[in-house]
Amino acid sequence: MELRIDRQALVPVVQQIVDALTCWLHASEVSPGTRLPSVRQIARANLLSQSCVAQACERLVTQGLLVSRQAAGYAVADPSRVVSATHEPSWLEGAEPERQPVSAELRLGCGGLPESWRETDDLSYAIQHVSRSDTASLFNYSSALGSLALRQQILKRLKLLGVTAQDSCIMTTAGASQGLDLIVRTLFKAGDRVVVESPGYPLLFDLLRLHGVLMLEVPRAAPGPDMDVLEALMREHKPQGLFINSFYHNPTGSSLTSVMARHLLQLAKAYGVQVIEDDVYADLYSGSGSRLAALDDSVIYVGSFSKTLSSSLRVGFVVANCEVIAQLAEVKMISSMGASPFSESVLTCLLANGAYRKLVQRQRQRLNSDRLAALQLLEDAEWEVFGKPAGGLFIWARSRISDEEQVRTAARRFGIRLSSKTAFNPAGEASDWRRINVAYACDPRARAFFQATAPDRPQAF
Amino acid sequence: MELRIDRQALVPVVQQIVDALTCWLHASEVSPGTRLPSVRQIARANLLSQSCVAQACERLVTQGLLVSRQAAGYAVADPSRVVSATHEPSWLEGAEPERQPVSAELRLGCGGLPESWRETDDLSYAIQHVSRSDTASLFNYSSALGSLALRQQILKRLKLLGVTAQDSCIMTTAGASQGLDLIVRTLFKAGDRVVVESPGYPLLFDLLRLHGVLMLEVPRAAPGPDMDVLEALMREHKPQGLFINSFYHNPTGSSLTSVMARHLLQLAKAYGVQVIEDDVYADLYSGSGSRLAALDDSVIYVGSFSKTLSSSLRVGFVVANCEVIAQLAEVKMISSMGASPFSESVLTCLLANGAYRKLVQRQRQRLNSDRLAALQLLEDAEWEVFGKPAGGLFIWARSRISDEEQVRTAARRFGIRLSSKTAFNPAGEASDWRRINVAYACDPRARAFFQATAPDRPQAF
Repeated sequence: MELRIDRQALVPVVQQIVDALTCWLHASEVSPGTRLPSVRQIARANLLSQSCVAQACERLVTQGLLVSRQAAGYAVADPSRVVSATHEPSWLEGAEPERQPVSAELRLGCGGLPESWRETDDLSYAIQHVSRSDTASLFNYSSALGSLALRQQILKRLKLLGVTAQDSCIMTTAGASQGLDLIVRTLFKAGDRVVVESPGYPLLFDLLRLHGVLMLEVPRAAPGPDMDVLEALMREHKPQGLFINSFYHNPTGSSLTSVMARHLLQLAKAYGVQVIEDDVYADLYSGSGSRLAALDDSVIYVGSFSKTLSSSLRVGFVVANCEVIAQLAEVKMISSMGASPFSESVLTCLLANGAYRKLVQRQRQRLNSDRLAALQLLEDAEWEVFGKPAGGLFIWARSRISDEEQVRTAARRFGIRLSSKTAFNPAGEASDWRRINVAYACDPRARAFFQATAPDRPQAF
Repeated sequence: MELRIDRQALVPVVQQIVDALTCWLHASEVSPGTRLPSVRQIARANLLSQSCVAQACERLVTQGLLVSRQAAGYAVADPSRVVSATHEPSWLEGAEPERQPVSAELRLGCGGLPESWRETDDLSYAIQHVSRSDTASLFNYSSALGSLALRQQILKRLKLLGVTAQDSCIMTTAGASQGLDLIVRTLFKAGDRVVVESPGYPLLFDLLRLHGVLMLEVPRAAPGPDMDVLEALMREHKPQGLFINSFYHNPTGSSLTSVMARHLLQLAKAYGVQVIEDDVYADLYSGSGSRLAALDDSVIYVGSFSKTLSSSLRVGFVVANCEVIAQLAEVKMISSMGASPFSESVLTCLLANGAYRKLVQRQRQRLNSDRLAALQLLEDAEWEVFGKPAGGLFIWARSRISDEEQVRTAARRFGIRLSSKTAFNPAGEASDWRRINVAYACDPRARAFFQATAPDRPQAF
């Protein structure tokens, strides 16, 4: 059993063994009960330490792919216990399942970083530091705008993106989700019209539907929304708002060019449209590019730490003019009594001691190499790619195989869970474009899946 | 300087010294810059250790009441820097001010337990334990219903109150605030009518106003809402819902009798009214009494750990029938992506290891003795008391002094911040009844304030 471990890779060796064994289990269709070679044999054949191999096998036991037979080593678990998730509502996209599925599929289209990228040390340190040194934060309700120290740290980071604001123009939220929810429920009412990008962020569509706000679709091209369509929508439908994921766009990975940004702001001004800029993937790239909020301070800007540091801490923020922030803060307090001062203090600690900056540097470096590799994989498999993203998590692509069932069969074979075909369209229309998360695309299972979808070898099926 | 420290009291000695010194500073009207007796002198005169006195003085420096003069000891700070908070919106009631006021007033009417009651050890232990042992909870989004382990622990506690439910009929929320918000936004629409108690919970009134839901007021008497008025409201206005704080009612401290509970449920059934039972103070008393949700499983039940363990963790829950929970969970995920798995894991740990049970036992014991003492103080000062609460935090009372300005002058003199006169009325009408938090009522400043409001000694002003 050859595992092809890359000792230069940024992915820890144990995780690489887990990935390789998972891929082998899916690809070789071994029957349940089949015994694996011994830990010692696998280790020797791949020049690995036995403890790394044993750790990897134990993880696969936890995932339900292997069973432990004590002295007799490991065997393949019963695949009939594999739970596959289909037709889930989009609001379940980021959520953890109630109980972990018995076998972990590779969520190739998922919206966050993989488990293996998580770094516990700095976060644990900050949690322990805050629980000892800032005991008030363990107990209190939040202030209406959130921790001042945290807001000042965030403003320092935003300055690097050209976004500047006063302390009173930034408010923390429980993740970007609460930020978007507060904006929609405070600034819009049922029957209002807003422009959204298509494809775009599924949860935003759900949120707008929940509030009865009508969506006008503008097609998203690589350099930004289609300006002709946008102007026509503004002229004909007089929308009240425009939601845009300007950089590392979800799901296409594309980023707004400066020319488009200025054009969009001119249109918004001319037609009196409130622009809401969702920039939750900002920290996953350090390249240049003008945020809309940097060009025009009437833009409402939404950010988050859920995509980089932790989704569990529930820390996001909104930057807007002070009057809007005061309105949002009132609704925030009435509807939630504010976010968690403890989470905010933990994040302040990581921003102040530089650990967050270093974390996102590592994530960017790793994403940049994975993105290049993923683009190469897609090119080799002759997938059509929607622009070549410069940053962020996503590539938007489609296989040239016209038979969709063939793609799905290949996905099942290698244990791949593909992104929803309908969730990224505001009207729920199906598309053969898929969101590819570059952090998952180099997993051996994904490699095997892409290879199997190259049009010149349909005999693979 | 005699401080009257009670070594048998449950309040730590340092806190008693802080309270006594604060009271002395407010009552004796010493001029700024006046030097205090030395730490050694205060300690000797009161048979205290010097380190306790020094700790207390340092806390008062932090609060801005004293200044440290190094070798020259402590002196009275400049009172012109004292910030007084008036006319705040009710949603600021529990919120921390943006910056701590220079001098801490005694918030006699506040809604939570005092800082001096906080116990850090068990909570810090759980936080550190979870950050080491459940690293997944540091990163992940929540599941739609929240942690199963936590929900099962909560259900165990609820069984003691007679409330039973399946795992799928309980959902965690970010505090009871999110629970109430989800209920209002999911089950009601603008123009709907709901019954609320008067006096009642200010933030609920704000929340209903925010959603354009119309409030019908039912007067709250000590044994429960006025049933004649309630029936008339139901008959005439056909409300869709009824919100009730059945036990240890905010602000009156009263609890629904079993007879009233059954009568109320009969009315609700007859007129098809959805009952929402807010029981956030449940753990602050262990006496008997039937929860509405224990008598009728169509009642929606809202609970929280913010009043006992921590407001910062943001953990609450809703129990309802499974269809309602599924509806609420969908809106929860769309609008917030769920609560914090880390907070939920910390709370699970404290529930499982018994620390939470012991914490609330200590809180109840202390509250019971403070409640008796507070009722005695009020009786001595001849305040009118609205029923004698058996549990919880609050007493609802009013001074018999007819001149309101006299009461306010006494409050200012002793550094007391009284509860809002208008916030507890759904229509914002003023009342001379005040919410007294029993955990603050035995503070020397509060004692002095009550004594000064006894009608037979108006010469005190």
